[in-house]
Amino acid sequence: MSLSAQFAKRMSRMKASEIRELLKLLDQPGMLSFAGGIPDPALFPAEAFAEAFQDALSPGRQARSLQYSVSEGYLPLREWIADHMATLGVTCGPEQVLITSGSQQALDYLGKLFLSPNDTALVGWPTYLGAIAAFNAYEPRFDQLRIGDNQPPVSYAIAAEVAGGRVKFAYLSPDFANPTGETLTQAERLAVLDVAEALNCAVIEDAAYQALRYEGEPVAPILALEQARKGGDLEACRTIYCGTFSKTLSPGLRVGWVVAASPVIAQLVLMKQAADLHSATLNQIATHQVAAALYESHTATLRAVYGRRRDAMLRALEQHMPAGVSWVRPEGGMFVWLTLPTGQDGAALLQRALAQEQVAFVPGQAFFADGSGANTLRLSFSNSSETQIAEGVARLGRILSEPQ
Amino acid sequence: MSLSAQFAKRMSRMKASEIRELLKLLDQPGMLSFAGGIPDPALFPAEAFAEAFQDALSPGRQARSLQYSVSEGYLPLREWIADHMATLGVTCGPEQVLITSGSQQALDYLGKLFLSPNDTALVGWPTYLGAIAAFNAYEPRFDQLRIGDNQPPVSYAIAAEVAGGRVKFAYLSPDFANPTGETLTQAERLAVLDVAEALNCAVIEDAAYQALRYEGEPVAPILALEQARKGGDLEACRTIYCGTFSKTLSPGLRVGWVVAASPVIAQLVLMKQAADLHSATLNQIATHQVAAALYESHTATLRAVYGRRRDAMLRALEQHMPAGVSWVRPEGGMFVWLTLPTGQDGAALLQRALAQEQVAFVPGQAFFADGSGANTLRLSFSNSSETQIAEGVARLGRILSEPQ
Repeated sequence: MSLSAQFAKRMSRMKASEIRELLKLLDQPGMLSFAGGIPDPALFPAEAFAEAFQDALSPGRQARSLQYSVSEGYLPLREWIADHMATLGVTCGPEQVLITSGSQQALDYLGKLFLSPNDTALVGWPTYLGAIAAFNAYEPRFDQLRIGDNQPPVSYAIAAEVAGGRVKFAYLSPDFANPTGETLTQAERLAVLDVAEALNCAVIEDAAYQALRYEGEPVAPILALEQARKGGDLEACRTIYCGTFSKTLSPGLRVGWVVAASPVIAQLVLMKQAADLHSATLNQIATHQVAAALYESHTATLRAVYGRRRDAMLRALEQHMPAGVSWVRPEGGMFVWLTLPTGQDGAALLQRALAQEQVAFVPGQAFFADGSGANTLRLSFSNSSETQIAEGVARLGRILSEPQ
Repeated sequence: MSLSAQFAKRMSRMKASEIRELLKLLDQPGMLSFAGGIPDPALFPAEAFAEAFQDALSPGRQARSLQYSVSEGYLPLREWIADHMATLGVTCGPEQVLITSGSQQALDYLGKLFLSPNDTALVGWPTYLGAIAAFNAYEPRFDQLRIGDNQPPVSYAIAAEVAGGRVKFAYLSPDFANPTGETLTQAERLAVLDVAEALNCAVIEDAAYQALRYEGEPVAPILALEQARKGGDLEACRTIYCGTFSKTLSPGLRVGWVVAASPVIAQLVLMKQAADLHSATLNQIATHQVAAALYESHTATLRAVYGRRRDAMLRALEQHMPAGVSWVRPEGGMFVWLTLPTGQDGAALLQRALAQEQVAFVPGQAFFADGSGANTLRLSFSNSSETQIAEGVARLGRILSEPQ
């Protein structure tokens, strides 16, 4: 294991336990939390799920719903996903879709598929903590995927070779990324594809938040851009698209998906068969019924409600943040990413915020594979009311306005 | 990757696709199948599950049921499992229990936890195909766990060292194993513990069929025997117990569990957090309700029905098998294991059985990590009626009585 991988592994483990401790504090009365990047449970389509589970467990259907099923996933759900991908500009068939237990499982399997010890994974600085944790099991080295600074691809390749492996993939979340909320332009997405072509490596496109856009025009998924470049041939594409119902319908059911060229899907199916046989049959059947009935109308509701919460947070930040604090204005997703003046420390701030003002967030350092980013923090607006957001940001503003 | 691991990996993949092709044939009208080792869906407690899912999705509970939850699993279910383990002679607390997505996932995680390339896993010849597939992802070497022939443990250690690794665990299913149906005596279980102590390696106890005993007295789990040896201290135990609701309540919900010393559980929890966050929340809540309500009465029903099917299969074998065919008389589980005269080939027999008599089974060679066992086959009695069993075994007897 390389030193950087060891470091990152230790760090991500520490942070996981720290975050767990933090989450326990959040149950205290009066606490306002912008910490967890979780959907608002009041918005779950619970009645539709209750009906779907009842239907799936009715006589005549229950035997199938409770039985073993195929590793690739429930065919009607894969067909629904293929239709859904078409609305995003990706043309695929159900044989190019695998159902996973959330997109987290897809990241684990893709790490297992691609990474040998000392291979390089290109990730953002910062990036999704769960991706670092999933890939870390396979003992890679991480290198910073720099987008837009014209870094020559060969420099990644040389560094990877010096470290004893190859660049196996670039991982990124192009829409309203966790934790930064940033969205890549079409030109930036094409630049990532250029880098991957030059390195002959895969692109892992984590589309967890894709459906949650509150303003601006959608940008085509990287997979759609690559498919268009390659004359519509998905089989020629190196991009692997990871989707999930966790942010739109329910995270607790653990239903996500992968879209990729069929040889990649075939390898992932074998891997899944060996690792957990298949995702829960009943959950796939119920998710299909609910998605078919109300995915479009339900995500429209989410966009309206979460969009207002984002607006409330941006307004409150304008009002309460002292000079020297900056933030990303996200076009969607669940997060606003703050940068404090250099020298300030998000983790120390959290201790004071919890003790003095009962407000919680996630210090940003956890999201950096190299351990930098001490002066950053992530605020989630998805699971707080507009009133709570206004009050919580005011509290944060008081803490940040204290002499450091 | 060692040559034997490469071979086993290739073999297990081939067999998986072959078995998949086979399973497709089974939908033909008139086909009688003893192939799949699956529960009879007519016996699923479907009404209880329908009620449990409805309850879990009722107002006031739905928010929790559909939300993210902790990686170690739903606490009331872990408490129920701790109580259940006490009935088997294992004293543990919920902090020594992890919920997995079926026991297959436990095998994958244990492979990931213990195995580096060229390490040795001791397994039976034959053993559960899914265990070989799960462990293979981590590129081990397999060696044959010989029970009862006084093989000196040091011989395993030397062979492992020559291969470039260490013996990391012995994997076995002591009750009515898949595929052989064999059960280890208490003395044999203690002998396995002695070997593991000598090698300072773990014991992975796969208890998938434990609840399905149709005759004879239960033998204590290996973990219970070890805990007794160690003065009741589970924390001092090297045995890792893998349980599942797949054979008792429903395989399609993907709910299993691991019981082990808490440092092992803590490592597996971190691994699960990185790999799929947690098993489906709703499925754990519903499984808890159903298990608490009817686990004992339901498994009693299963034992009665499956026990009659086993009896029907043993009677039919006595009646229809030609001289030279022998079989294991299982005290429980789902399988009868047949050995044909040396030189006969189970895979070739299957082709004829499908074509001439429309009867299916699994050729036994798939279950041998070393590729031996061509003259064996596995018959499952769990998903056929007594009438189908009598007819199917008669058909098999006709094929086997033909001149070879």
